[in-house]
Amino acid sequence: MNIDHFPSRLLEEAVTEFSKLPGIGKKTALRLVLHLLKKEQDEVHRFSEAMTRLRDEVKHCRLCHNISDSDQCNICSNIARDHGVVCVVENIRDVMSIENTQQFRGVYHVLGGIISPMDGIGPSDLEIDSLLKRVEEGGIREVIFALSTTMEGDSTNFFLFKKLKGSNIRITTLARGVSVGDELEYTDELTLGRSIVNRLLYEQIIS
Amino acid sequence: MNIDHFPSRLLEEAVTEFSKLPGIGKKTALRLVLHLLKKEQDEVHRFSEAMTRLRDEVKHCRLCHNISDSDQCNICSNIARDHGVVCVVENIRDVMSIENTQQFRGVYHVLGGIISPMDGIGPSDLEIDSLLKRVEEGGIREVIFALSTTMEGDSTNFFLFKKLKGSNIRITTLARGVSVGDELEYTDELTLGRSIVNRLLYEQIIS
Repeated sequence: MNIDHFPSRLLEEAVTEFSKLPGIGKKTALRLVLHLLKKEQDEVHRFSEAMTRLRDEVKHCRLCHNISDSDQCNICSNIARDHGVVCVVENIRDVMSIENTQQFRGVYHVLGGIISPMDGIGPSDLEIDSLLKRVEEGGIREVIFALSTTMEGDSTNFFLFKKLKGSNIRITTLARGVSVGDELEYTDELTLGRSIVNRLLYEQIIS
Repeated sequence: MNIDHFPSRLLEEAVTEFSKLPGIGKKTALRLVLHLLKKEQDEVHRFSEAMTRLRDEVKHCRLCHNISDSDQCNICSNIARDHGVVCVVENIRDVMSIENTQQFRGVYHVLGGIISPMDGIGPSDLEIDSLLKRVEEGGIREVIFALSTTMEGDSTNFFLFKKLKGSNIRITTLARGVSVGDELEYTDELTLGRSIVNRLLYEQIIS
């Protein structure tokens, strides 16, 4: 369906705005907008205000650059967390993913991207200087690289490693290996190869 | 990914609002909201305002009940259209679909739904009385039923037919037949059967 014949300019504008979102085509946008149109007025206002307020009022933590409702995020201001272990991630979603594992008690550093010459993203576009500053200021024992295991992720890891290796801290990265629940038959050769080379004591898995 | 660990209440609220939309899960909502968060402030405001303004300011045409920016829609106020031919449709999207064919020069009547006892929608929930009133007022030569060819659509057609058959107007419905571009092998038997019974002169197709 080609949807050029909008009966209302207001409808057209709403659909146009919605279809600017990634993965939302004109047809989906129309469906969503017509859904909103059927809702109570205050529900639609609540929807719009949630977006506006998020954009206007959200802050970034001055330490880790995660988004936050205040100048310092809940994780950085939590004294029960280990502030000596910093996990370096690409974005906010990665923080949320790792938090959901409930396996990490340290703090984070959100780079805001990874080095990607193809997309014109260099080290200066990322929160790398502030990471180096945090390390320089002392108190950090370990930096964990938790970036994607892609070429860009590996390049960024290597760049950070070169910058950090002078300082007397432990630099680690997420373990590479067979995913829990994966069948060996479908595991790629590189991962399988690394997981044999870096094999673990069985006791480490069952403990 | 389970996404319960929101770093910000504002983010959580925006994601919650977005995930109320049909077909938008929490993960998609988060992706869309983080996209908005990266946009310029005025772009986000434009998005929110488009939704609020649509809900607050959009009107329904007092004649055909299509949505409109004024009391009378563009189609109903267009003197070049044939106001003697009224096409009855379920909703706004159907008007847009038919308008896009550029094959119809009459006007519309938007019922706002179809009779569906299972969903508790009866004739009084729809714009049926206003259709009968339009017909009574005269000037209408033909009413075209353009509802879905489902049981509910057929029931609604039949209900309207009973109400309208006393008046001296032509009552028609969309032709049933094989879709243009469809292979016969995949056409359902009922459609194929009807399209043989109601077969057309070949000249009608090629003209």
